[in-house]
Amino acid sequence: MPELNDEERALRDAVRSFLEKKVAPDVAAHERARTFPWELLPQLYEFGYVRGGVPEAEGGDELSMMMQAILMEEAGRCWGSLRTTVNVQGMVARTLSAAADAGQRARFLAPLLEGRRFGWFGLTEPDAGSDAGAVRTVARRKGDGYVVNGSKIYITNALGCDFGILFARVLEEDGTDRGVTAILVDAAESRFGVHDIPHMPLRSTTSCELTFDDTVIPAANVLGDLGGGLSLAMKAVNVGRLNMAMGAVGLSQACLEEAIRFCRQREQFGKPIAAFQLVQQMVVEIATLTETSRLLGHRAARALDAGEPGRYECSMAKLYCGESAGRAATLALQVHGGAGLMEESPVERYFRDAREATIPEGTSQIQILHLGKALLGHSALR
Amino acid sequence: MPELNDEERALRDAVRSFLEKKVAPDVAAHERARTFPWELLPQLYEFGYVRGGVPEAEGGDELSMMMQAILMEEAGRCWGSLRTTVNVQGMVARTLSAAADAGQRARFLAPLLEGRRFGWFGLTEPDAGSDAGAVRTVARRKGDGYVVNGSKIYITNALGCDFGILFARVLEEDGTDRGVTAILVDAAESRFGVHDIPHMPLRSTTSCELTFDDTVIPAANVLGDLGGGLSLAMKAVNVGRLNMAMGAVGLSQACLEEAIRFCRQREQFGKPIAAFQLVQQMVVEIATLTETSRLLGHRAARALDAGEPGRYECSMAKLYCGESAGRAATLALQVHGGAGLMEESPVERYFRDAREATIPEGTSQIQILHLGKALLGHSALR
Amino acid sequence: MPELNDEERALRDAVRSFLEKKVAPDVAAHERARTFPWELLPQLYEFGYVRGGVPEAEGGDELSMMMQAILMEEAGRCWGSLRTTVNVQGMVARTLSAAADAGQRARFLAPLLEGRRFGWFGLTEPDAGSDAGAVRTVARRKGDGYVVNGSKIYITNALGCDFGILFARVLEEDGTDRGVTAILVDAAESRFGVHDIPHMPLRSTTSCELTFDDTVIPAANVLGDLGGGLSLAMKAVNVGRLNMAMGAVGLSQACLEEAIRFCRQREQFGKPIAAFQLVQQMVVEIATLTETSRLLGHRAARALDAGEPGRYECSMAKLYCGESAGRAATLALQVHGGAGLMEESPVERYFRDAREATIPEGTSQIQILHLGKALLGHSALR
Amino acid sequence: MPELNDEERALRDAVRSFLEKKVAPDVAAHERARTFPWELLPQLYEFGYVRGGVPEAEGGDELSMMMQAILMEEAGRCWGSLRTTVNVQGMVARTLSAAADAGQRARFLAPLLEGRRFGWFGLTEPDAGSDAGAVRTVARRKGDGYVVNGSKIYITNALGCDFGILFARVLEEDGTDRGVTAILVDAAESRFGVHDIPHMPLRSTTSCELTFDDTVIPAANVLGDLGGGLSLAMKAVNVGRLNMAMGAVGLSQACLEEAIRFCRQREQFGKPIAAFQLVQQMVVEIATLTETSRLLGHRAARALDAGEPGRYECSMAKLYCGESAGRAATLALQVHGGAGLMEESPVERYFRDAREATIPEGTSQIQILHLGKALLGHSALR
Repeated sequence: MPELNDEERALRDAVRSFLEKKVAPDVAAHERARTFPWELLPQLYEFGYVRGGVPEAEGGDELSMMMQAILMEEAGRCWGSLRTTVNVQGMVARTLSAAADAGQRARFLAPLLEGRRFGWFGLTEPDAGSDAGAVRTVARRKGDGYVVNGSKIYITNALGCDFGILFARVLEEDGTDRGVTAILVDAAESRFGVHDIPHMPLRSTTSCELTFDDTVIPAANVLGDLGGGLSLAMKAVNVGRLNMAMGAVGLSQACLEEAIRFCRQREQFGKPIAAFQLVQQMVVEIATLTETSRLLGHRAARALDAGEPGRYECSMAKLYCGESAGRAATLALQVHGGAGLMEESPVERYFRDAREATIPEGTSQIQILHLGKALLGHSALR
Repeated sequence: MPELNDEERALRDAVRSFLEKKVAPDVAAHERARTFPWELLPQLYEFGYVRGGVPEAEGGDELSMMMQAILMEEAGRCWGSLRTTVNVQGMVARTLSAAADAGQRARFLAPLLEGRRFGWFGLTEPDAGSDAGAVRTVARRKGDGYVVNGSKIYITNALGCDFGILFARVLEEDGTDRGVTAILVDAAESRFGVHDIPHMPLRSTTSCELTFDDTVIPAANVLGDLGGGLSLAMKAVNVGRLNMAMGAVGLSQACLEEAIRFCRQREQFGKPIAAFQLVQQMVVEIATLTETSRLLGHRAARALDAGEPGRYECSMAKLYCGESAGRAATLALQVHGGAGLMEESPVERYFRDAREATIPEGTSQIQILHLGKALLGHSALR
Repeated sequence: MPELNDEERALRDAVRSFLEKKVAPDVAAHERARTFPWELLPQLYEFGYVRGGVPEAEGGDELSMMMQAILMEEAGRCWGSLRTTVNVQGMVARTLSAAADAGQRARFLAPLLEGRRFGWFGLTEPDAGSDAGAVRTVARRKGDGYVVNGSKIYITNALGCDFGILFARVLEEDGTDRGVTAILVDAAESRFGVHDIPHMPLRSTTSCELTFDDTVIPAANVLGDLGGGLSLAMKAVNVGRLNMAMGAVGLSQACLEEAIRFCRQREQFGKPIAAFQLVQQMVVEIATLTETSRLLGHRAARALDAGEPGRYECSMAKLYCGESAGRAATLALQVHGGAGLMEESPVERYFRDAREATIPEGTSQIQILHLGKALLGHSALR
Repeated sequence: MPELNDEERALRDAVRSFLEKKVAPDVAAHERARTFPWELLPQLYEFGYVRGGVPEAEGGDELSMMMQAILMEEAGRCWGSLRTTVNVQGMVARTLSAAADAGQRARFLAPLLEGRRFGWFGLTEPDAGSDAGAVRTVARRKGDGYVVNGSKIYITNALGCDFGILFARVLEEDGTDRGVTAILVDAAESRFGVHDIPHMPLRSTTSCELTFDDTVIPAANVLGDLGGGLSLAMKAVNVGRLNMAMGAVGLSQACLEEAIRFCRQREQFGKPIAAFQLVQQMVVEIATLTETSRLLGHRAARALDAGEPGRYECSMAKLYCGESAGRAATLALQVHGGAGLMEESPVERYFRDAREATIPEGTSQIQILHLGKALLGHSALR
C-alpha cells in the first residue's frame, strides 16, 4: 500500500494490533450472546475513533479523513458491530461539534468524547427511508418545550444509548412549520418508547424503533437552527457514507484473508483446494474487489482532506464498496462450502454483515441516482 | 405455465393451498424457536412427498419426477426447512427402496413412508465434502456385526431422526477393504454421538456432526451390496440435485412474490417504489431468473421421466437454480431496503436460506466440472 | 430436447441440414463481400420461412409459432444476416396478411411469398427509436394520393427491396391528423432516397436511411385503416421479438459449438485447453445460457400457439435471449484468445452479430419496463 | 484526480490537447481506410511516448512509470490503434535498451527513438499463445549466422515495420539447444514472409503472421544472451500489461464521455434519455469502472516507480482494466441503441477495440492464475 504515508501506516498497524489482541478473541462470543463491550470504547477512542472527526479545541483529535478512513477499515475488518457502533458515535459527535451550543457541548459532546455517554442518530422513519426529507415526526412548541409525536426506525443502538439526536419537524404553537430540526433527546429527561427489531446482520447492535407519544423535550435541546436539521444530517451522512464504504473495505479484506487461510488448509481430491483454478478465481476476484474498493475509499478521503466537497466521491465509494463487500462475502463463503454456513466460521458472520452494506446511508439505488444526476445534470428520482 | 398438464396443475394447486393454510402461518414462529412440526409430515406425505419416489408395490405413490418436482417447488416456496427435510426423507426412502431386503423394508421403509420413523443420510465427512468418495469412516467386521469408527458432518436433522443410512468403508476382520458400503444405523440399537452445529440457513433443521467411537452395528443392517455404497449414494444424489434445484425455484418464486407485494405498497418520494425504473429492473430480474430456473428444472424432470439418465440435466438445474436463488434473494432484500434486514420480513429468511442452495449435493463448482466433462470429454478435476 | 415433437424435430433437422450444406459454406465470403444470396430465399421459403406466418388461404404455410421459432433458431445458428432478412420479410408478410386488400395481396403479398419481391418495414425514425409512437414522417393528402415528407432510419435491407411498408402520420388536406398509418411504398412507383449506413453487425444486410422529400404515393396504397398503423406495427413487433429471441438462441448455440470445437483441439501447456477448469467454466456458462434461452423462447412460442396474447413471454424472451447471446459470444471469443479476434474465425462474426441482439424490436431497457409494468401495474417510462 | 502531481497533470493536459487537435479528427478516416499516420509518431515521441521507457543516456526521456501510464491512458482515450502501436514500439525500445550492444543501439535503438525506424515484437506462435515458453521457431547456427524456420502469429504492425525482435530457440550446429533467444531481424537484410490476418479490433494496425523458411540472420543480430530471450520478453510484458491496462482505462474514459454526450442530447418520450434511471445506471456503472480502473493502474505504476517488482499489481491492473473496458464499451453502445451499431458512431469502434483488451499480454484467465499463485502459493496451471 504505497498510498499510505508513515503516520497513516503506523496508525493502521497500531489499531489493527490492538483489535486483534483485545477485541477479536471475544467477537464470536459477543455475537452469540448479542452483547457489546461498551467498556472497551474509551480505549478505542484513544486511537481516534469518534474523536477523530472533532476539532482539538472541542476535545477531539482532529484527524485527517484518511486517518479516519483507516480506522474504519480496521474496525470493519475486525467486527461489523463495532464498526457501525463507532460510526454512529462519530456521526453524533460531528453533528454536535457542528451545531451544539456551549451548554450542549458540556452536557453531550464532552462525555461522548470520553466514552461516558453514547448517542443515537435518529433520522430514518417508517415512511422516510431513502426519502430522508419526508420526516413526519412532529415537535410542536408548547411553553418552553416541545411535545413530540411520531416514530423513528432502524435507529442503531438506541437501546444502549444515553441520548440521541432526533430529526423532527418543528411546529410553532400556532402551527407554523419551521422545518426539520435536530433536537437532543436525553433518556434521563424525556420519556419515549424504544424497542429492538431483531435483525440479521450486526448481531451485537440493536436496530431500534423509537416511539414518541407526547414526549416532552426542553426547548434548550434544539441543536443548531430551527429548520436546519436536514442540512446538518446530510453533512453527517456524507462522511457516514465514506465510513460505511471503508468499513465494507475492511469486511472484504477479512473475507480475503479468511478465504486464503481456508483454501490453503482444506484438502479435497488429494490436494489443497487452493490449487484448483475455480477456487483461485474466487479468491482473485475477492482480492481485486478489495483492492479497487480500498483505492476508491482512499480517493474519497483524500478529496475531503483536500477541501473538496467530496459528495460524488463518497457516494461512489459507498456504492462500489458496499456492493463489492456483498460479492466478496458470497465468494468467501462459497470457498468454504458447507463449513461457511456454520456459525463457527467467521465467514458466516461476514456474509450476514456484508448484506447490510448496500442499504443504510443511502441504498445503492440512491447512490446511482445521486451520481447520475452529478454526471448528467438531470434528476431521475422524481 | 402451459408446460404443466391438468394433473400436474391440480397437484400444484392442492399442495400450495394446503401449505399456505396449514404450514405458512407458523413458519416464522418455528424458525424463531428452531422447532419443526414433525407431526405435520404424514399429512404432507398424502400429497406424494417422500412416498412419490417409491414404487406402489412398496407402499409408495410412484409419482413422475415432474410431479415430484412440483412438490419440491411448492415446499421451497413455503419453507426451506420443510423442503430440505422432505428432500432428505425422500433420499432415504429411495435408497431403501432400491436396496433394502424384506426385513429392512418392514423395519425402516414402511414406517418411514407412514411418517412414523425418520431417517438421516450420512455421506459427508469432515474431509470428504466435494470429494464424496474419500470416505474415511470405517466399519470393521467383528463377529456378526461391525465396529464403526469415524465421523460424519453436516448431516441434516440427525438429531431428530430415528435411524440413518451410514456410508462407511467396510473392512473384513483380516483388514480386507470391501469398499464404501451403506449401513443402516438404528438409534435404538447402536450408540453414537450426535450434536448440532449451529448454522445460518434453515433454522428449523439441525446440521449435525455424528461421531462413531467403536459403535457396534449388526451385520444384518448392511444395505445392499458390500462395496455398493457410492453407487447407491450417487443415484440418490442425482434426484437430490433436481430436488434442491426445484426447491431453489420455489424460493425464487417466493422472493418474486414478496418483492412485488412490498414494492407496490411501499411509498417513497410520493409514489409506490414499484413505479421506479431501478426497482422494476430488480423485480424483472427476479422474475426472469425464476422463470428460466423453473423451465430448466422441469426439463430435467421430463428427461428422467422419459427414461434418460438425466445426470447432465439435473446437474445444470442444480447449478443454475441454486445460483439464481441466491441472486433473487439478494435482489428481493434490496427492494425492501432496511426492512429486508429485519427478521420480521420473510426476505430475511429467504436470503439466509438461499445461501445454502449452491453448496450441498455438489457445489456450483463441482457441477461446472461435471458439466464441463460431459460437454468436453476431459476431466478438469484432478 | 424432449420438448420438441416428432414433426418439430423433423423440421429442425431438415432445415439445419439444408443450411449447413447450401448456405454455411458461403457465409464467410458473403460477409466479406457484403453480399447476400437473395436467389436462395425461395428454397428457404419451402421450409416455411416467411410463409409460415401467413394462412394457407393466402398462400402461406400457416405454421405453428413453435415451428417458426425452430426456423428462426436454425437461421440464427447459421447466419445472422440471413436470420434478420427472413425475419423482416416475415414481418412484412404477416402485416400484409393482416391488413392488405385484394389488390394489395395480389401485388405485394403473393410475389413476396414466392420470393419474387422483397419488402422493408419502415417504422423507426431518427427521433423515434424506443418511442415508436413518436412518428414524425407525414403523409399529407393531395388529390388521390399522399405527399410524404420525413425520414426513416435503420431500415433493414431497404436498399435491396422492391417495396416497403411505411409508417407515417396521415394528414388530411385540411391538416386534420388521422394518426399513424401503414402505407405501401413501391420503389417502381414512388421516388425516395435510400442509402446504407455502414454498421458493425450483420454485414450482409444493409441498414438504411430513407428520405422522403415530397414523395408521391397513390391513396390505394394505404394498408389497413387510417390511424391503424401503430397497432399493426405492434402486432408484427410481438412476433418479431420472439423471432429475434430465437435467432439469438441459434447464435448462442453456434457459439457453444464453436467454443467446444476449438477448445478440444487447441493445446496449451501440454494439453487441450478443454481440460482447464477456467475454460470449462466458460463453456458451461455458454451451454447454460443457451439452454435456458431456448426453453424461454419455446415457452413464448407455445403460449402464442395456445392462443394467449404472449406479450409478456415474448418480451422476456427477447430480453433474456438477447442479453445471453451477447454474453455467450463474449465468452466464446475469450475461449479462442487471439484467434477469436481474427475474421477467419466464425466467433469474430458471432461477437459482432450478437451485439445487435439487445437493441432492435425494443432494447433490453424497453423490455424491462414493459415487463415491469406487467408485473407491477405501474409504468415507469414517463 | 488529486492523485496526480502538477507535472503529471501538465503532461496529461498537454498530450490530451495535442491528440484532440492533431489526431482525433482523422481517426475515423484512418480506420475506414485501414491506414495509420506513421509520420505523426515523432511528434508524439516528444511527449515521451516510446522514449519514456529508455534512459536519457541512451537517448530516451526516462519518464516515471506514472508519466508513461498517463501517456498510455491518453492514447487509449483517443485511438486504440495508436495506443497499441506506441505500446509495441515502447516494448521494442525497452528491450533494446536492456540488452542491445553498441552496434545494435546505433542501428536499431537510436533510429527507433527518432521515429525513423519501427520494430515488431515477435513472441507469440500459433501453438504458443498463453504458453509463451513453448516457442517452436528454431534458429540453427550455420557458419556466422543462423538459419531460422518457424512462424509467428498476431505480430502487431509487422507489415509496416523495418525490423523486429524475434524470439526463437537457438540450436548449435551440433543440435545443442541453447534456449529461447532474442534475435534482431532486419527486413532489409533477411527474407521472411509477412501477411496481415484481417481482424476485428484496431483497424489501423495489422496483426501479422510471419513465416520463416530457411531465413538467414547474421549472428551479430543476437540480442542479449543466448537463452536469455524469455526473461527479456517477460520484462517487457510486465510493463506491457500496465500499458494495456492504462490504454483500457483511456478507452473506458472515452466510453464514459461519449455516453454522457449522447444521452444528454438524445430525446425519447419527451425528455433527454439522461433523465431515465436505467440510462443513469449504465452511465454510473461506466464511470465507476473507469475510476476504479484508473486507480488500480496508477497504483501499479506507483509500485514500479517505488522500485517494487510490481508483477502482482500489473497483472491485477491488466485483468481488471481489460475486463472493465469490455463492459464499459458494451454499456456505452447500449446507451446509444441502434446508433451505437453504426460505424459513424465512435462507440462502434470502442466496442470492437475493447474486445481486445482481455487477450494480449496474458488473457484474463492467465492473469487470474498468476494472481492466484501469488496469493495462494500454489500453481493451478499445470
